[in-house]
Amino acid sequence: MTDEPKQEMVVTPWEVKGDIDYDKLIEQFGVSRMTPEIEDKIAEHAGYKHLQLRRGVYLSHRDTEWWIKEYEKGNKVGLYTGRGPSGNVHLGHLVPWFFCAYLQKAFGADMYFQMTDDEKFLHRADLSLDEAVSYAYENALDVIACGMAPGKTHIFSDTEDIEHLYKIALRVAKKVTFSTAKAVFGLTDSDNIGKIWYPAMQAMTCFLESDREGRNIPCLIPAAIDQDPYWRVTRDIAQKLGYYKPAQIHAKFLPGLAEGGKMSASQPETAIFTTDPPKKAGKKVMRAFTGGRPTVEEQRDLGGRPEICNVYAYFYFLFEDDDKALVERETSCKNGEILCGHCKKELAKRVESFLTDFQEKREAAREVLDEYLIKPVE
Amino acid sequence: MTDEPKQEMVVTPWEVKGDIDYDKLIEQFGVSRMTPEIEDKIAEHAGYKHLQLRRGVYLSHRDTEWWIKEYEKGNKVGLYTGRGPSGNVHLGHLVPWFFCAYLQKAFGADMYFQMTDDEKFLHRADLSLDEAVSYAYENALDVIACGMAPGKTHIFSDTEDIEHLYKIALRVAKKVTFSTAKAVFGLTDSDNIGKIWYPAMQAMTCFLESDREGRNIPCLIPAAIDQDPYWRVTRDIAQKLGYYKPAQIHAKFLPGLAEGGKMSASQPETAIFTTDPPKKAGKKVMRAFTGGRPTVEEQRDLGGRPEICNVYAYFYFLFEDDDKALVERETSCKNGEILCGHCKKELAKRVESFLTDFQEKREAAREVLDEYLIKPVE
Repeated sequence: MTDEPKQEMVVTPWEVKGDIDYDKLIEQFGVSRMTPEIEDKIAEHAGYKHLQLRRGVYLSHRDTEWWIKEYEKGNKVGLYTGRGPSGNVHLGHLVPWFFCAYLQKAFGADMYFQMTDDEKFLHRADLSLDEAVSYAYENALDVIACGMAPGKTHIFSDTEDIEHLYKIALRVAKKVTFSTAKAVFGLTDSDNIGKIWYPAMQAMTCFLESDREGRNIPCLIPAAIDQDPYWRVTRDIAQKLGYYKPAQIHAKFLPGLAEGGKMSASQPETAIFTTDPPKKAGKKVMRAFTGGRPTVEEQRDLGGRPEICNVYAYFYFLFEDDDKALVERETSCKNGEILCGHCKKELAKRVESFLTDFQEKREAAREVLDEYLIKPVE
Repeated sequence: MTDEPKQEMVVTPWEVKGDIDYDKLIEQFGVSRMTPEIEDKIAEHAGYKHLQLRRGVYLSHRDTEWWIKEYEKGNKVGLYTGRGPSGNVHLGHLVPWFFCAYLQKAFGADMYFQMTDDEKFLHRADLSLDEAVSYAYENALDVIACGMAPGKTHIFSDTEDIEHLYKIALRVAKKVTFSTAKAVFGLTDSDNIGKIWYPAMQAMTCFLESDREGRNIPCLIPAAIDQDPYWRVTRDIAQKLGYYKPAQIHAKFLPGLAEGGKMSASQPETAIFTTDPPKKAGKKVMRAFTGGRPTVEEQRDLGGRPEICNVYAYFYFLFEDDDKALVERETSCKNGEILCGHCKKELAKRVESFLTDFQEKREAAREVLDEYLIKPVE
């Protein structure tokens, strides 16, 4: 399998496929590599170092030191992330949301969480606006279940809460030409005029907290690196509009259960949804792509390849918080001491137990949803 | 003056200049010429024939017979017009609004009146959003003072009432490509992405009443012909969205006080604003361009030229409801029996008295403004 030619990497806000080369992305996108100093600073304020920081999930950033320094000066700092609600949430989506909840607690930050139902409607021929809105509210339950703080989390739908958003989006839109949108997002004349407008909606949220509170509040965006084009445009116009440039911290993609690419809702058999019955999710794990060898004999002789194994990746990103246990698993695999079936069974068990617990939290979130939705400025 | 070369005609939603050739516009825009049958039908339902119908102010239309027939079948019909609130309202704006109030009464129609503060903000570098919004509310007073019916008039600002509008605008936007917007509105890659989005906002109102009432309601748009490109786009997509194509009835432009073009707020000395002190407006009239001859002798010999006279145009469009008196004025002018000073003085008096009365109505409108603003669907 490793001898097959690599798939060409494509990373845009609408498509991520192929073998992801993060070094190339860092260079292409002109972002800064994550540093141990920043990771330590975050851990210091949080009181502990999150699994995702220990495992290098956040590979790059822009201006994160500045955002932390502002906090250390005693200034209020904010967080922004979002979700395109075109279906159910899968584990890949949760990776940055868990981290957001951790950052929110560490820095006492308000989180503006954008449900881009307008974007999904405009981009997908098969999605109605009502469907997108309905997913926005369903997906909000997942956001809450990740542990976001009530009172400090402002979830909003672009279409349902547009009265809080349109004026700032217009101010942004006035500063962005179609030439820029073409160059940055690859939009063309054949795209609909809603798609051309939409970047203003995603950029706008960077300034939303500042606008609502009537003072400049540094904004940090934890998100996967494919969203970077939006922040490049936003950073270019921030100062013209009188706001700080938003800072970013970029997560790697959680792989799907099949080989290569990120976990994607468009390949439901290879993604574990938070709404999957736990047993069904366990079965998906049992069919996952691993770094195993074609035969038991080869595996015993040559050892497995955790570096390309999705089952290992799930332990690494989400399901093994114990660093020592993780290293032991890696070593045993490489030494051919354990077989793929063993790891799959263990992962399936953890996934099932995780989902059982998460789904309880998710259902409980229905009762308190309203507390997490954006409110008018007082 | 008549020997001077004609100025090139430019008629777009953002610019009207030069000598307006209505025959050419009708052909260019592919609209139907107004017919006496339609004018008579409207008069029949109204109970009288409005000055603007008697004088051919409405030169062309699209599907107006159909709209009237729907009404005659007992179906509800609606009206839509609007205003770009970038300054004070002048008499040129009032021409279609008076006619709207007449149509509204004749057909018992709801009127959706759009204040396009987003458009004006996006198009004008010097206009802030707060200014545009403030003009929207000020201009609404003029709309009310024109005699629109309370309870049946729904004035809205694109930015202040966006929660009622954004979803329909998204549905429209998804059906319009930038290629179309380029071809129809002459937009370019250098335009900001808000300007590119805006046509969806203006088109959306054609479907607003249908959307709010959950059934298809034929919509007629009385407006100046320069807005036609919006309706061409809207008509192309209406059926794809499940709505009727909007019908239109196109007004001529009221000329300014200087030679040529329409009355324009960007030439304040040649426009009479509804907020002008009446005496000041009278003085503007006294400086108006007329069809007079260079000397009194020539005027007595050759007669004046009401066909190019703006003072005559004001009597014709707004200030002389008596057809017989109008013909007498025209004849006396052509025969050299009256001089321009005479007509200017008479017009100044009527303008002053009109403004005194209108300004009272306009101030009274402040007290009832809220009754005319769009409300959530019950």
